Formats: sequence, structure tokens, C-alpha cells
Amino acid sequence: NSPIKSPNLDEEEKDTFKILVATDIHLGYLEKDACRGNDTFVTFDEILKLAQDNEVDFILLGGDLFHENKPSRKTIYTCLELLRKYCMGDRPVQFEILSDQSVNFAFSKFPWVNYQDENLNISIPVFSIHGNHDDPTGADGLCALDILTCAGLINHFGRSPSIEKIEISPILLQKGNSKIALYGLGSVPDERLYRMFVNKQVTMLRPKEDEDRWFNMFVIHQNRSKHGATNYIPEQFLDDFIDLVIWGHEHECKISPTRNEQQLFYVSQPGSSVVTSLSPGETVRKHVGLLHIKDKKMKIQKIPLQTVRPFYLEDLVLADNSNLFLPDNPKVTQVIQDFCMEKVEMMLDNAERQRLGNPKQPEKPLIRLRVDYSGGFEPFSMVRFSQKYMDRVANPKDIIHFFRHREQKEKNEDEVNFRKLVHRPAAEGTTLRVEDLVKQYFQTAEKKVQLSLLSERGMGEAVQEFVDKEEKDAIEELVKFQLEKTQRFLKERHIDAEEAKIDEEVCME
Amino acid sequence: NSPIKSPNLDEEEKDTFKILVATDIHLGYLEKDACRGNDTFVTFDEILKLAQDNEVDFILLGGDLFHENKPSRKTIYTCLELLRKYCMGDRPVQFEILSDQSVNFAFSKFPWVNYQDENLNISIPVFSIHGNHDDPTGADGLCALDILTCAGLINHFGRSPSIEKIEISPILLQKGNSKIALYGLGSVPDERLYRMFVNKQVTMLRPKEDEDRWFNMFVIHQNRSKHGATNYIPEQFLDDFIDLVIWGHEHECKISPTRNEQQLFYVSQPGSSVVTSLSPGETVRKHVGLLHIKDKKMKIQKIPLQTVRPFYLEDLVLADNSNLFLPDNPKVTQVIQDFCMEKVEMMLDNAERQRLGNPKQPEKPLIRLRVDYSGGFEPFSMVRFSQKYMDRVANPKDIIHFFRHREQKEKNEDEVNFRKLVHRPAAEGTTLRVEDLVKQYFQTAEKKVQLSLLSERGMGEAVQEFVDKEEKDAIEELVKFQLEKTQRFLKERHIDAEEAKIDEEVCME
Repeated sequence: NSPIKSPNLDEEEKDTFKILVATDIHLGYLEKDACRGNDTFVTFDEILKLAQDNEVDFILLGGDLFHENKPSRKTIYTCLELLRKYCMGDRPVQFEILSDQSVNFAFSKFPWVNYQDENLNISIPVFSIHGNHDDPTGADGLCALDILTCAGLINHFGRSPSIEKIEISPILLQKGNSKIALYGLGSVPDERLYRMFVNKQVTMLRPKEDEDRWFNMFVIHQNRSKHGATNYIPEQFLDDFIDLVIWGHEHECKISPTRNEQQLFYVSQPGSSVVTSLSPGETVRKHVGLLHIKDKKMKIQKIPLQTVRPFYLEDLVLADNSNLFLPDNPKVTQVIQDFCMEKVEMMLDNAERQRLGNPKQPEKPLIRLRVDYSGGFEPFSMVRFSQKYMDRVANPKDIIHFFRHREQKEKNEDEVNFRKLVHRPAAEGTTLRVEDLVKQYFQTAEKKVQLSLLSERGMGEAVQEFVDKEEKDAIEELVKFQLEKTQRFLKERHIDAEEAKIDEEVCME
Repeated sequence: NSPIKSPNLDEEEKDTFKILVATDIHLGYLEKDACRGNDTFVTFDEILKLAQDNEVDFILLGGDLFHENKPSRKTIYTCLELLRKYCMGDRPVQFEILSDQSVNFAFSKFPWVNYQDENLNISIPVFSIHGNHDDPTGADGLCALDILTCAGLINHFGRSPSIEKIEISPILLQKGNSKIALYGLGSVPDERLYRMFVNKQVTMLRPKEDEDRWFNMFVIHQNRSKHGATNYIPEQFLDDFIDLVIWGHEHECKISPTRNEQQLFYVSQPGSSVVTSLSPGETVRKHVGLLHIKDKKMKIQKIPLQTVRPFYLEDLVLADNSNLFLPDNPKVTQVIQDFCMEKVEMMLDNAERQRLGNPKQPEKPLIRLRVDYSGGFEPFSMVRFSQKYMDRVANPKDIIHFFRHREQKEKNEDEVNFRKLVHRPAAEGTTLRVEDLVKQYFQTAEKKVQLSLLSERGMGEAVQEFVDKEEKDAIEELVKFQLEKTQRFLKERHIDAEEAKIDEEVCME
């Protein structure tokens, strides 16, 4: 309401939703790292402050607010602290919810939007789906977002009660004359969701009245780029009545909406707000979006984040520099090492020049030099190299990534796939899928330790839950489940209790 | 304000604090147990409902609200749910806080009492100290209560910033003409606190004005019964200006205040609201208290809890029944087993008769028959015995506890001491102190695996944190700490970098 605004502008604001859009904040990523441990919290603080300063109507998150399925006490604590600090207050919320909230928030013990709870003074409601990192697990099907929901600080939506069939009922929002139908779908394993789409088991409900007046927005957290035939969700699977898709999970910032010419909708991919892999996609400047929606029109204003740790990546192909490096030179490794050092120094100079001047931006940049040493070269030891950059680089131990050309392709796949993989922060790049390890184990195991009652696939999934999600009871639950199933099977067949016969019967199955 | 009340009574209420007092609720105890898993939540619900129904001014908890230092997601979630359900609402809080809240709640990110936060509508403030189960751990010094504090649902107080010196600043409360000085001290290892008291390092600050008009109440969570010379806190250590001590940690309900004739104060020991050990103290009927305080007068109204799982314990000394059991009878074990079965049946009948009729009280009772088999008898196998009671007893696997007379004494010690011990719910009674195991390991270890830089005591404490508190980084932190200390030591001595010399120097220390 500044004096220079015309009355028309005020009028327009009354009808315009202003939404802060962000995703993949990964709170708690590397929290034990002395240098990088606070990065995710600092940037979440920045994002919430942007929402407050811009007086948005609400915040919309696309999943993976938490990096770990079971976030540490400190991470939950800090998240609660920041939400309470920025999202509570007296500024009134300017939009209404027209849909049945007991459907939208069916899973919650408090199945209504937090800002309408008379015991909570919410100024910025947060709506979030869950991602693959913070998805529901365990017997109770709880996820970390549910803690925040129960504390009244966010509104977790887009949970599907079934794993065979998904029916998405939108949250219907109205501000002045503008109406949004907000659809959400928390992360589902890509292959399963792909199958459901193919089998027409995903339906999106639409409001009966004024069907054409709604701005239809869909928030999803899945692979967008193709990781194998069915290990992603093609855009054309999504209903064409949608106007805008907010695509979470992919870390590269492509927040400016791109039009899908087949479906005639737009897709905005905000990207993560923290670098979790030293790959090219993560070098792209990180942004959040200020999404304006008036009637059926929308616009996204890109807001560059000021507190993200700078990340610079360069490539070096030794064989391309045969004037400098001769494989036969006995001192070639030293020459290469000196050259890499020069490169890194230049990257550091560049980083210094490009600093944003925000005191909260971390000082030490992430530096990655990818060195292709094919053509008879040897990698040098990283010990002394790392030592030299201990105080100037945030990732001294893995500044240099050596690879050979023929490995390039695999490596790229790996990097693209990184989110599906087990993270071992101390040694990036050595990522292996837990399920594959289990499969491999049983395939190469001796006959006597092979599985008979339990399936390799079930065991693979249980071990994966155990490792990736710290779901301590996953294996026990699988065994119990299979045991009960087997017992039922035997009872139905009226099998005699003699053990030999049971063995026979069971192995026949 | 019912019509039969005289105006004087109303007047009196205006000056009377009504406080619900409870302790050792142990949320999440045995949460994975199919039968007993919900017990702690059901009873916490009952306690909060009692507070609501009795329109208390506040709830005062004496520690161990949580059983695990890192409660499961479900436990945190359920606790938040219940607190939000019962402690938020429109009924106004009728007392004021006169002390400096930034001192009382110094550790909190929101250092003021929750009911004065303008964004939260609190009807029943909860004040709690931490216990030994849910005490602060780790580099951040956070505890589970801090999550609740950050969510605005409790007020954690009684934290001491120092481990060498404790200065307790009271929360000063006023309702009408009545004034309470509320002192709290979260759990501290008994031996350390004992030493601090002896060394006069524990001081309690008193308000300067109207010193004699304050009702002085102290909440503490320590051993009250003597577990060794300095492993408890004698009542006479506590200042004699105190009027009432609320003593947490001890599970036996002794809630009716007993007068300490030396110090001239009263002690009320509410006891736990859940049976966590099958020992005599836990058979005592569980209560919470409705504490009324007006000026310097107080009274505690005992409220029996209706949802606590019934627990019956009996003793049987085989040698005392030599008319029934002859050690030489070849079938004596069968006779004993039959007799025990009869006993258990009688206990079950008794349990059935004494049921309270509350539909929320769990059906299956806890049954413990302690059988002294000294005198040449043999224990019988529990497999079939347990099977028989699977559907009728909550603890079928450990109904019978066999012991021999000469073991009695040790055993009792064990049971009394149980809270200091590692819990292994699957096999109660086999409790061992982690620190002792570590000590024993190094004492009997071969020379080459004995510790030189690290101390056994430090390692014992770190391993204990790792095991009992699931503090995953405790050992790493100890090693890092010791390493840095050693490096400082070496630097100060200007030691040469030759390894041999360093070894010498270090081992000389």
C-alpha cells in the first residue's frame, strides 16, 4: 500500500495469489560436517525470510524438506524454530479454502489447514508434499513432515492411502476472484507410479462448478529426466487440464516455466537450494520462485538465493594437453599436479570475484576439477593436495575427481541417478544401490544360504529401508509378514504339522 | 462457579493455585510390544484429561516424560498430538510470572513461558524438568523436551549450564495473593550432584522481596533411596527454606507428602505412571496429585489413575512348602509347575475381580511370581508355561522369576537400581552397566589392545552414551577431543615430529 500505487494495482493485488515456491531444501544434509553443517539451515532461513518480506499468501514446497528420513534431533529442532519464527504472526491470511479439508488433510490428527486453527496464529501457511528422502515409512506410515504438521507448523498434503490406485483430490483455494485447484502427489517409487499411470490408476478429481475458472497446479516429486524405460514420469502422462506443474526432486534450477507443447501446460522445476552432488546440474545458480496467479494467468519471478555455498566445476582432459603432459616424462605426475593446482587457484580467484557480498553466504566454495586421465596417465595422491586447500575449499578431500574416458558414460549415469542411490558423503561417487547389493549377494551365495520363504526383492526392499531410512524394524516386519502369510497358506491347505511335509509344501509354492 | 458455592469459596479459588503433579510417564516404553505398546500413551492421555477436567492452573512434571533419550518418531508425534489436544484452548491462564523469564528459560530459542506467546493459545501450561532418561546429550546439548519447547507445547526448566556449579533461579508465580517460587533441577548423575552438594556448589537464589511469603517448591529427579554411599541425594542436602519437594525418578507412588523432621519440609514422590520393572515398588497403586497451594498452605489430593495396566506380584519359597514339594520326588518339577499354575490362576482371578471398569484400562494384567528354588530344586522350562498365558497375561515370557536365596540380595540391588541400568526389555533382569562392561573389557584385555591415549573412564562414558542414549557420535567426539588435547600438549612441549619421540612423550604423560 505504498503511496505511488494506483487504486487499480491494489485491486489487482486483492485478486492475485502470491506464492513462494521452493523445493529440495534437504535440511540436515552433511550436518556433521564442520564446514558445511549449517548450510541447509542458513538457506532455509533465507527462504522463509523472503516469504515474509514478500508478504506471500503461502509457501509451497515440492518435497525433500529433510535430507534424512529420520532427521536428527537438531534438524527437527532447527526446522521447528525457523517455521515458528517466520510463519507465525498477526498478518492475516487472505485466501480461503473451499474444498473439504478433512479429505485434503485426511491423514492428520488435526485435519484442517493450520491457519484456521483457532489456537495457532499463523501468518504464512506452508503446504508441502513429501519427497523420496522424507517419505512415510514404518508400521505407522509417519514421515518427518507429520511432526511439523502435528506441531501445527505445516500442512502436509498429497498423501495417497493406497499403493495400487491414486485419486488426487485438490485443495481448492480462493483469493478475491482467483481460484486455484492445488493438486499434490508425494514421492512414489518411479517405476510403481509409471505402472499406475500406464494402467490408468491415477486420477485427478476436478471441482464441478466453474470448471474452467480454476487455475490447476500440480506439485510432484519424481524423476523428470529419463533414468531407464520406466524409471521416470514422462510429462505427457500428466492430465492436460493442468496449467502449471511444480516439479520437485530434480536439483538443477530450471524454475522459469517451460511449455510442454503436447499437453499445453507449463513446467517449473525450482531445483534444490543446496548442492548435494558435485555435478554440472548443481552449478546452476539456485533460485526460489515468487509465483503470481490471477485468474488463469500466472508469472514466476525468479529470486536468486544469496546464501548458497558457491560451487565451481571444471573439466580437464590430460590427453588433450599433450604439449604439456608427456606420459613418458618421469615427472609427469608432478607436472599434472602443479597444473591442477593452478587450475584450482584460478577457480578460487573466480569464486572470490563472484562473491555476492552477503555476509551469510559461506566463504569457502565447493570446487570440483574433473580430470580425465586416460591415455597412460596416473592419478596423483590427494593427501597433500587436500591439505593445501583445507582452509580455502569446503570439500578439500574431493576437489579432484579422476576418471578415465571409457568410464565417463557410466559415471554420468551415476551422477544423474544420484538421488536414487545411497549417499556416502565421505566418499562421493562410490554409490551403490542397496537393493542391488542384496540381489547380488543372494545370486552369488551358496545354495544353503539362499532364500526360500523370503523373496530377494522383498528382502532387498527391507534392507534398503533399514539402511537408507534407518527403519530398524523393516527386516523384522518383512519376516513376520512372510511368516504369517505362510502360516495362513498352510492352514488353508490343512497341512499336517509334520515338519518334513511343511517343507515340501512351502517349497512347492 | 457452581451455584452452591459461597462467594468466599470463589474468593478462595482466586488465591489458590491448582497444579497437576505427575512424573516418570516414560512415553514410548515398550512401544514395539504388541500388547503393552500403547500403555504409556493411554495413561498420558488420562493424565492430561484430568488436568483439563480439574481446570488446573498448570501441570508440573518431574522428569522422564520420555523413556528413550531419542524417542521414536511415533512417540514424539503422539506426545505433540496429546499436548496440542489438551493444553491448547481458550480457557485463560490465571497466574502471572514475576521472575525474569529469559533467565528461567535461558536455553530456549523462545525464552518466555508458552502461554504468554501471542501466537499460541495455551490453556494449560506444562512445566517440566528433564529426567535421566530424557536428559540433554550430544554436541548441541539438546533433549527431547526441547522439541516440545520449540513447538511451544511445554516449558522446559531447571537446566544448569555448568557441570561444576549449579545456581538455581526460581520461576516466580503469582495467583491472586499466593506466590510460588518454583525451583527445578533436571537430572544430574547422582554421584556428581552429591559431590557438588558436599562442596557447596549448589545454591538456590531467593527473591529479595517478601521472602517469607513465598511458597518454595523444588522439583528434582534423582535417586532418593540410598544406592551406595554417594549415589543418591540425601534429603537433608536440600535447603531448609523449601516448603515442598516434588521428587521424581523413584517409581513407587508415595505421593502423600511426608515430613522431613530435620529440614522441616515435605516431600511428595508421585511415582511413575507406568510399570517399567516387575518389582514390589511398582505394585503400589499409581496416582497423580492435585496440588493446592494458598499462601504458605498446601494440600495434595491423590487421584488414582484408571488406565494403568494392573500388576500383581507374589513370592513363593519352595523350601517353605516341603510338605508339598520333595526334592527327591522324580516328578517334583511337574508338581511345582502345577502349583505355580494354580498360583497364577488365583492371581488372574484376583486381577479380574479388582478391575476398575474403565474401558481404557488394558485387559491383560502383568503377573510376576518370584520363585525361590534354593534347597535342591530345579527351575522348570518356561516355554509351555508361557504359551498357556499368551492370551491372558501381558508378560507371558517372564511370569515366573526363579532365583535362589543366596542370590536374593544381589537381585534386589539390581531391581532397585534398574533405572541406572541398560534396559533390555526382551530379557529383564539381565541388566548390566555399559560402563562396567567397558571397564571389565579393558582390564582383562591383552596388553596390546589396552588404551594409552584414551582413558577407560572416558571410553566407558562414551560407549554408555552411544548405547543408552543412541548418541552415535559420542565415541568419535571423545577420540577427537583427546586427539586435540594431545596435540596441544605436544605443541606446548615443542616436541619434534619424529614418531618415536612422540610415542615416548605421550606415554610418559
